Amino acid sequence: MCKFFSGVTVQGALRASSIETTEENLLQLKYEPKSVWGYVEVHIEQGPVLENVGLPLGSVKGIAGQTRLKVTVKGTQGHAGTVPMNMRQDPMVAAAELIVFLESLCKQPDYYLSYDGQCTSSTVESLAGSLVCTVGEISTWPSASNVTFTVDVRAMDDSGREAIIYEFSNRLYHMCDRRSVFCNVERKHDANAVVCDPGLSTQLKSASYTALKRITGEDPGDIPVLMSGAGHDAMAMSHLTKVGMLFVRCRGGISHSPAEHVLDDDVWAAGMAVLAFFETLL
Amino acid sequence: MCKFFSGVTVQGALRASSIETTEENLLQLKYEPKSVWGYVEVHIEQGPVLENVGLPLGSVKGIAGQTRLKVTVKGTQGHAGTVPMNMRQDPMVAAAELIVFLESLCKQPDYYLSYDGQCTSSTVESLAGSLVCTVGEISTWPSASNVTFTVDVRAMDDSGREAIIYEFSNRLYHMCDRRSVFCNVERKHDANAVVCDPGLSTQLKSASYTALKRITGEDPGDIPVLMSGAGHDAMAMSHLTKVGMLFVRCRGGISHSPAEHVLDDDVWAAGMAVLAFFETLL
Repeated sequence: MCKFFSGVTVQGALRASSIETTEENLLQLKYEPKSVWGYVEVHIEQGPVLENVGLPLGSVKGIAGQTRLKVTVKGTQGHAGTVPMNMRQDPMVAAAELIVFLESLCKQPDYYLSYDGQCTSSTVESLAGSLVCTVGEISTWPSASNVTFTVDVRAMDDSGREAIIYEFSNRLYHMCDRRSVFCNVERKHDANAVVCDPGLSTQLKSASYTALKRITGEDPGDIPVLMSGAGHDAMAMSHLTKVGMLFVRCRGGISHSPAEHVLDDDVWAAGMAVLAFFETLL
Repeated sequence: MCKFFSGVTVQGALRASSIETTEENLLQLKYEPKSVWGYVEVHIEQGPVLENVGLPLGSVKGIAGQTRLKVTVKGTQGHAGTVPMNMRQDPMVAAAELIVFLESLCKQPDYYLSYDGQCTSSTVESLAGSLVCTVGEISTWPSASNVTFTVDVRAMDDSGREAIIYEFSNRLYHMCDRRSVFCNVERKHDANAVVCDPGLSTQLKSASYTALKRITGEDPGDIPVLMSGAGHDAMAMSHLTKVGMLFVRCRGGISHSPAEHVLDDDVWAAGMAVLAFFETLL
């Protein structure tokens, strides 16, 4: 859906359409909420769930909120051969322990969160289906006494995500104290979750069912309703109008890569689902 | 003890001493073992033990053997937001788990090694005092689906070190299987331990005691007998003759750094100990 034309600025593109970039002109370009009925986006899943259940289409219930952290662990640099194990303040092992803990926390949030009264049981339940936590980068720059890593936490439930960040930070400071290393957590980015319109979500699910039944002549079974862990244009459009999304199966859940691939038949199924969706609106 | 003179080659230095670098001449430069009584080296500890016990001198019982490994963990790259926790093959968490396990193994080798009959109790006992394991570098190059890290294992007991490498590799393959990631261990370097001559070691301990008593006028208490985790010239000299080493306290155990520091008084104490050592030989 997006193309980047080298050398063409937004201002240049607008001018080519005879629009000067004055504040007044830009405000006039804005959609009036009343003039818009809703927004529906079709996108590849960018994840492996549809491939795993063997269906080409899924409806989306919402787009996860996201927090990105930068964690710094500072210890004491020592000679690998001369500092006894029990006299070390090794930031590498401390970081490794934190990464392992983060995985446990996000795999079993109910185990860690339900015992300290931070979350209601409904929060924990909603987390269980959507929570993902990732350490993508780690570095020992500028020296081995300094280890930094990034943490990416996403969930449909914003308060649940906050509870995870709180629990992770809390345990982090305890673990770092125990190892006599200095730890710091910086919040680099926060975005709240966007909930898709339940009506649109149900209509897209039903339209997917109709399309797949028309194509195969068989009952396709239950159409999955997925959470989107990746951000989408629908996040921005949700400030204007109700949003809905249709996900299309992709190979291996891979996106933003030359290996990204979608079957022609699945694109066809998506088109048929959009057609069925429009039919229900007529 | 070492200086590097820019631009001067070994050949140039030998020629300046009127020695042409022919094979015959070089062989003539070799010490005859019979012509050498022994080799004693004075060095800063490069570790924190002497500072910790509050004494300027220690005798060395041996120089640890060393194995360096390169561990590669290959998983599947996925979108941080879209791959559910239970569908991941995340090499980062796998590497973190291995690093935490390595620390546990090297802090409590008796716990891990004594139950599978790999080691005699004497091996485990000798490991406990000298074993150190370090992960110094970690990288996610060329992509997040690939994590590599280095492992440095040192111990006085060569068979104990082998048992640690075996146990680490064994558990590594199990852990990697469980996480469905591919792991590979490359052995990059091996050096066996060098045991200092027990006679020299005792003489240097006794000489240190005498020196410290002469300087302070008080009983200095028990002089520590240390293991050297770092490599030393004595390792090479051990092929020629018996070796002994005297360690001098340094600040924070720091070496190979602008922060390396030894007290003048401690250098003086080392000189006095060497004098006392020579006195016992007269």
